[in-house]
Amino acid sequence: MKSYRKELWFKTDQRRDYINITREVQQAVDDSGVQEGLVLVNAMHISASVYINDDERGLLSDYDKWLEKLAPHAPVDQYRHNDTGEDNADAHLKRQIMGRDVTVAITEGRLDFGPWEQIFYGEFDGRRKKRVLIKVIGE
Amino acid sequence: MKSYRKELWFKTDQRRDYINITREVQQAVDDSGVQEGLVLVNAMHISASVYINDDERGLLSDYDKWLEKLAPHAPVDQYRHNDTGEDNADAHLKRQIMGRDVTVAITEGRLDFGPWEQIFYGEFDGRRKKRVLIKVIGE
Amino acid sequence: MKSYRKELWFKTDQRRDYINITREVQQAVDDSGVQEGLVLVNAMHISASVYINDDERGLLSDYDKWLEKLAPHAPVDQYRHNDTGEDNADAHLKRQIMGRDVTVAITEGRLDFGPWEQIFYGEFDGRRKKRVLIKVIGE
Repeated sequence: MKSYRKELWFKTDQRRDYINITREVQQAVDDSGVQEGLVLVNAMHISASVYINDDERGLLSDYDKWLEKLAPHAPVDQYRHNDTGEDNADAHLKRQIMGRDVTVAITEGRLDFGPWEQIFYGEFDGRRKKRVLIKVIGE
Repeated sequence: MKSYRKELWFKTDQRRDYINITREVQQAVDDSGVQEGLVLVNAMHISASVYINDDERGLLSDYDKWLEKLAPHAPVDQYRHNDTGEDNADAHLKRQIMGRDVTVAITEGRLDFGPWEQIFYGEFDGRRKKRVLIKVIGE
Repeated sequence: MKSYRKELWFKTDQRRDYINITREVQQAVDDSGVQEGLVLVNAMHISASVYINDDERGLLSDYDKWLEKLAPHAPVDQYRHNDTGEDNADAHLKRQIMGRDVTVAITEGRLDFGPWEQIFYGEFDGRRKKRVLIKVIGE
């Protein structure tokens, strides 16, 4: 069994952002030499997500508005987590909706995807350096 | 390490539907010959889910009503994704609540499940052909 | 390929609770002897979650309040699942928000985690014996 590990680093300009990382994940699979197996892709920080959905500008805007409705950032004093001096409690909630990680099948060396699947890094408390982990296992 | 791949196809009569696929996943595990390992089951389309919960009619109705409350289908012009001519933005949101994929342990050739776990295909924009991927790895 | 399986048992005093199980999962990885691979950790019951986030008391209180807002327990007769005599329909909904399982990379024998990642068992219908499954695969 082969295994391979890689980190991707991000520092977004805005608090929230949605970044397509599909190409970087396929590159990691290529570098691993794995033909049949699984790749795990996960946010290493707990106020961010990795998820799979469409790379369509309107949808990204819909997600952002919807997440703000389900778990609003302000007023920050509605959250007990923010009593610690943080202002990112909402980001920990948003991340649970969108998920921490995805697992993708690798078949004949390729991400085994349907027609529109794209892997995204969802940032909910950015403007600082944060990481995604890619772990490949297989043969 | 063994690996095995199978697709399941669906075309639901209604826009939204919830279909128990546990038997088909166990069959794929049987066909793989894997005794110890993992099976990944994921929607290959981004307006559908694979999730694990109870096969109880009342609960399926509760999920459907609840998802409509959290991410309503209408009015369709509330979503920027629908400016593209689609009317399924809500389905992309519902799918994030219910999840894209599940990973299940295989122990002694069986799905290693608690007493009530059942694998479901959750369709949020049906009435057309769509797929689920089953990928088994192990020994 | 090695594989290893372990169950954790819980019986919470309250209906809802959030329990840090990171140490127990690392112990299972140690016991497995796996240096490079994946560990799947999942609730074996469908009214509970396994998720990764911060071990901070304020945040746990925020999650609890937020989940009650998104999927309230009472009135119990708002849910068709509760027509069966159950009163836990809300727990099946809350569990979908927080997720059933997490998959974690194992690198050099350790859970390959960012600085604040902690694995939690989220109980939404406790006061009875329930289980979590840990499955390790790798080499």
